[in-house]
Amino acid sequence: MQTISTNHVRGGTQGVYCHDSAATGTPMTFSAFVPDGDGPFPVLWYLSGLTCTHANVTEKGEYRATCAEQGIIFIAPDTSPRGDDVPDDDAYDFGQGAGFYVDATEAPFAQHYQMRSYIETELPALIAAQFPVDMSRQGITGHSMGGHGALTIGLRNPDRFKSISAFAPICHPIDCPWGEKALGGYLGKDRNAWRDYDAVALIQDGARVDALRVDQGEADQFLDEQLKPDALRAACAEAGIDLSLGLHPSYDHSYYFISSFMADHVRWHAERLKS
Amino acid sequence: MQTISTNHVRGGTQGVYCHDSAATGTPMTFSAFVPDGDGPFPVLWYLSGLTCTHANVTEKGEYRATCAEQGIIFIAPDTSPRGDDVPDDDAYDFGQGAGFYVDATEAPFAQHYQMRSYIETELPALIAAQFPVDMSRQGITGHSMGGHGALTIGLRNPDRFKSISAFAPICHPIDCPWGEKALGGYLGKDRNAWRDYDAVALIQDGARVDALRVDQGEADQFLDEQLKPDALRAACAEAGIDLSLGLHPSYDHSYYFISSFMADHVRWHAERLKS
Repeated sequence: MQTISTNHVRGGTQGVYCHDSAATGTPMTFSAFVPDGDGPFPVLWYLSGLTCTHANVTEKGEYRATCAEQGIIFIAPDTSPRGDDVPDDDAYDFGQGAGFYVDATEAPFAQHYQMRSYIETELPALIAAQFPVDMSRQGITGHSMGGHGALTIGLRNPDRFKSISAFAPICHPIDCPWGEKALGGYLGKDRNAWRDYDAVALIQDGARVDALRVDQGEADQFLDEQLKPDALRAACAEAGIDLSLGLHPSYDHSYYFISSFMADHVRWHAERLKS
Repeated sequence: MQTISTNHVRGGTQGVYCHDSAATGTPMTFSAFVPDGDGPFPVLWYLSGLTCTHANVTEKGEYRATCAEQGIIFIAPDTSPRGDDVPDDDAYDFGQGAGFYVDATEAPFAQHYQMRSYIETELPALIAAQFPVDMSRQGITGHSMGGHGALTIGLRNPDRFKSISAFAPICHPIDCPWGEKALGGYLGKDRNAWRDYDAVALIQDGARVDALRVDQGEADQFLDEQLKPDALRAACAEAGIDLSLGLHPSYDHSYYFISSFMADHVRWHAERLKS
């Protein structure tokens, strides 16, 4: 693991790091905020949305003050493998910057687009080895495509994650244009293979957690066509999952929305991670 | 004035606007955060540093929560005129992105580089006309080159600004490489003409305010060669100005430093603007 930068900020250290990933076969960059003090600290994973790298939330997320106050490490991975040799697409919503947190099975993507394995297995092992973390206390959150990632990774690993939240997540990708394009492209035409990567379908198929928290801006330009929180609400109601779904008038899909509710999410995770 | 964007965020609206400036003869972009509510609100000006536009502090400054809490409008102008017709320089510390808040007198810069007039006169009139502001309650701050701008504009206009602070300002530009290059380039060889644009020289020449606040990271890579807070401390001591100079181990020159102390600065201004 190579250190790209470290800066002291708001009661901790914001670092950016790079390492060679076996899962993706590429160098991968991520950021980690570590509070001052000795730890070990609980870990909050943040998965980013379409077009983002680790840098967007690191610059605009406004999470550091609350993470330092609560004593929580905040990890922000990249959203896909990257590089000249990595298959890409001219669209913003497929290829590099749009990994959708899946292990691709379709050529030519299967070779590098192994973001599920990277986020679920490889990167946690690196974090456990390199940072003062208590891996028995992990939470996960994310935005949009990363909210989809947080919900699905959390629902598939309920024993690992004590807390799962999302900002404006793609709740039901098998039933929206972004998801149908990405899941079809990475996983092929068999829609049964998509259900492991859809929060609503995972719940319908039996995944259970005690609680989920989702916040959603009602002025979000992608709300009706892409995000579908009502489908998540219905699935949670049917399954008896306590979904806290906050709908916020006048907030859009941007980091201005995320930063407005970030402190609330960090504290919500902290309550569950430290109990 | 043209609205580029508005987003609801943290108890207010973050806007970005563009207008044709008579002072610079170019379009100029700035950002304004306006708290929810009717106002009129006090105004805090934030002047940015070398290479920056309005966008750096708008994305990374973490000022909105405290400005909303305190009921303060936050205005972030650009750092120079810009455009294909505006003289520039290959260096990062001269030309576009490096206006140094002076009214240039030297060719070819004098035509467009009129940032003193723009910030002191033209933009305040626009802000007064377009936003719910109480222009009898203004404070000013800034970072690095913008800290120099805040201190010098504040010291030249003590009746207008009730509060003046800076993050890692260039305190004594007539005696550092950045300042000598910029002031010589924009104002010519006569160093007497530079003294209006140097906080230490202004105080030595008789400018008086009750108080100044400066915060400075001790791990700042530009501290010794460019920033010279000791010269400001000596001038303030001699003049009887109450300088609160906070020196902070391990903080550098980046926006991570600024965001760590932004809430403190906003509250410090609020106390003075609302008293």
